Amino acid sequence: MRAEILTIGDEILIGQIVNTNSVWIAQQLNLIGVAVTHMASVSDSDEAIQSAFDSARNRADLVFITGGLGPTKDDITKKVMAAYFNTELVMNEEVLGDVTAFFAKRGKELTGINRQQALVPASCKVIRNANGTAPGMWLQKDQTIFISMPGVPYEMKAMMTDTILPMIRAQFKLPFIYHKTVLTQGIGESYLAELIEKWEDGLSEKGIKLAYLPQPGMVRLRLSASGDNEEELRTRTEQSVEDLKTYAGQYIYGYELYGQETPALEKIIHTLLKDSHTTLALAESCTGGYITSLFTAIPGISEVLKGATVPYCNEMKRTLLGVPQEVLDRDGAVSEACVLEMARRTITLFDCDYALAVSGIAGPTGGTDEKPVGTVWMAVAGRQEQEAVQFRFGDNRQRNIQMSAQYALNYLRKFILKHN
Amino acid sequence: MRAEILTIGDEILIGQIVNTNSVWIAQQLNLIGVAVTHMASVSDSDEAIQSAFDSARNRADLVFITGGLGPTKDDITKKVMAAYFNTELVMNEEVLGDVTAFFAKRGKELTGINRQQALVPASCKVIRNANGTAPGMWLQKDQTIFISMPGVPYEMKAMMTDTILPMIRAQFKLPFIYHKTVLTQGIGESYLAELIEKWEDGLSEKGIKLAYLPQPGMVRLRLSASGDNEEELRTRTEQSVEDLKTYAGQYIYGYELYGQETPALEKIIHTLLKDSHTTLALAESCTGGYITSLFTAIPGISEVLKGATVPYCNEMKRTLLGVPQEVLDRDGAVSEACVLEMARRTITLFDCDYALAVSGIAGPTGGTDEKPVGTVWMAVAGRQEQEAVQFRFGDNRQRNIQMSAQYALNYLRKFILKHN
Repeated sequence: MRAEILTIGDEILIGQIVNTNSVWIAQQLNLIGVAVTHMASVSDSDEAIQSAFDSARNRADLVFITGGLGPTKDDITKKVMAAYFNTELVMNEEVLGDVTAFFAKRGKELTGINRQQALVPASCKVIRNANGTAPGMWLQKDQTIFISMPGVPYEMKAMMTDTILPMIRAQFKLPFIYHKTVLTQGIGESYLAELIEKWEDGLSEKGIKLAYLPQPGMVRLRLSASGDNEEELRTRTEQSVEDLKTYAGQYIYGYELYGQETPALEKIIHTLLKDSHTTLALAESCTGGYITSLFTAIPGISEVLKGATVPYCNEMKRTLLGVPQEVLDRDGAVSEACVLEMARRTITLFDCDYALAVSGIAGPTGGTDEKPVGTVWMAVAGRQEQEAVQFRFGDNRQRNIQMSAQYALNYLRKFILKHN
Repeated sequence: MRAEILTIGDEILIGQIVNTNSVWIAQQLNLIGVAVTHMASVSDSDEAIQSAFDSARNRADLVFITGGLGPTKDDITKKVMAAYFNTELVMNEEVLGDVTAFFAKRGKELTGINRQQALVPASCKVIRNANGTAPGMWLQKDQTIFISMPGVPYEMKAMMTDTILPMIRAQFKLPFIYHKTVLTQGIGESYLAELIEKWEDGLSEKGIKLAYLPQPGMVRLRLSASGDNEEELRTRTEQSVEDLKTYAGQYIYGYELYGQETPALEKIIHTLLKDSHTTLALAESCTGGYITSLFTAIPGISEVLKGATVPYCNEMKRTLLGVPQEVLDRDGAVSEACVLEMARRTITLFDCDYALAVSGIAGPTGGTDEKPVGTVWMAVAGRQEQEAVQFRFGDNRQRNIQMSAQYALNYLRKFILKHN
């Protein structure tokens, strides 16, 4: 079962909107075991649409089409479909009733241009639209089914969920697909690949596909298996995840199942703190409030986060946090001694259970031979104990901040797990 | 000049990541007068990639390819390209030097798998990657140029901006397009559209196209004119911008010329502070470090930014900043009195020339009838004077933080201009 997604509309091609419809449709299809093998976006032009239909028909069993169904002249999808399927547009009374009711509900009269929304290709199965005026259309040519939907995301999503996905499940016997994504932090993509090379080599004979999904400061590994026996796929994939732990267990901080949100490190820490009724504060120098802003994006974080300081200059490290002048003179602001003081004093200042402190040289200037740009010291503290670690990232300021944040968050997570 | 964009990678097809690369590339190409007529996403499969190359070659002059260039086994774009162009992969010494330097700079050794990043199709023009290990490749087949880039957004963007767009402009005679973007803050898109309706109606006869580019808390208006006479286009567009000021001058905070970075409010403030040798500190409650992180993303900001506090709970507003308990008891933390105290005390605590303080209810919970979710107070202070203002945004937490940040930054900018 191969599916393709086709988006029709100039707004995508000029880069005015991000194509989130395709992402969502792909997710839904994967969940029911339909593989999406191609996505395309074409303009509102007769030739481009017909050519895309031809290509898709040669490759796919199902073609999902969004966009180009509005009442204005630039939207031509419906006309092109009627021509492509050698049929004509006819007034559908059921849809006309829906459209009339749609306008009546909003206290508006049905105008001629909106009446045309009830015209559909004579040979199509109509998919009713509970949230708008453009109906969906289900048409077959040779062995390929074309399903056309409006481009307005919430209209399209309701149609997919309520009508189209159930129709597909009813009509086809689908293989099951099991995805599991392993979240790692603390090792770059290529080093991880070497570390797990043997494990990776064994995957193909187990029928498991692996994908590396790198982001600044972390790499996600996605394992996918497809087949008929859901339970067996799950067992097989989970066994491979277990095997992976013997190679790279120390870098794994979480898992993501398909259709679930990625558990970000700051959210994992939020849960750890909430469950143990403990509190956190931060002292951010080179990361400049970025880590705190990740935490404060989480609803309900105020239960566990007491606050933060951004002592961006040496003077403030001394006056705001109380880092001794002699430490700054002797070791500098980017040093083990300084971040340990920052973390310790944050515990006192905020009367909190855990503290995270970061100080480094984000760049592009400020580096020395001894402490080049990208040098970052970070410390974590509890009420009794504290520890510090140094990293050396690259020379891109924004990336250094992001990398520092991910490394610091994972360092804090491990510290909390150890001391909770 | 017809361009297509091809994205290679299973992560797009299973809906795991949103394809923002295509949007950005389309925007850049449109800005230099190259129309994007097709976008596609295919899997990391030999057959799918070759077939997509064939289709694109029949339609387009330029094909922009992203993804599939990582060092791991699932990435096959480079091998497929070599086969498609009937050439072989050869070690490129220049790229090998780049890759070696990339690792050396990070204190790491070059491993075998990373060495392979320096293999490129023998017939390609190499596009060097300043931010990663995968080089870009420029190859021609018949009349079509294929340009392959890594999928990591900041690597791809730097390559496009620094090398590829200049190469395209040098190689092809493109019509001249003059773009000028007017940056507004403090008025929503639809209100702005009503305010400038008359002005907008007159644009088409002047041959100027207008695009609204809304973002949380601001609206950018892009004016574009296309033709052969660069000077005349500039004069005509700049005159329209002058005319716009009589309608919406109070909302305009800056301008952006094509190819120049958007002058974000925090950058404008950075310049104002630097030029007047003054300093800034912040006290962020509901924005939770986000505004500070915008400032600290700017290289060289440490000259003017002394630091910040994030007093996320009432206790910390009292102990860290010294907001009197009676103010918190009487008016609450989200009040004019509280933000004025926060701003005033930040001036003292940081011994700085300007302070910005924000306190509000980001949501989704914590609102009351009197102060619903989205209520935000902000204050600005100098060494002598201070003022405060209240806004009411919506009920989406992330959006409230972003909106607060933009409104606060513009409020601070105006205050500095008034008192500098």
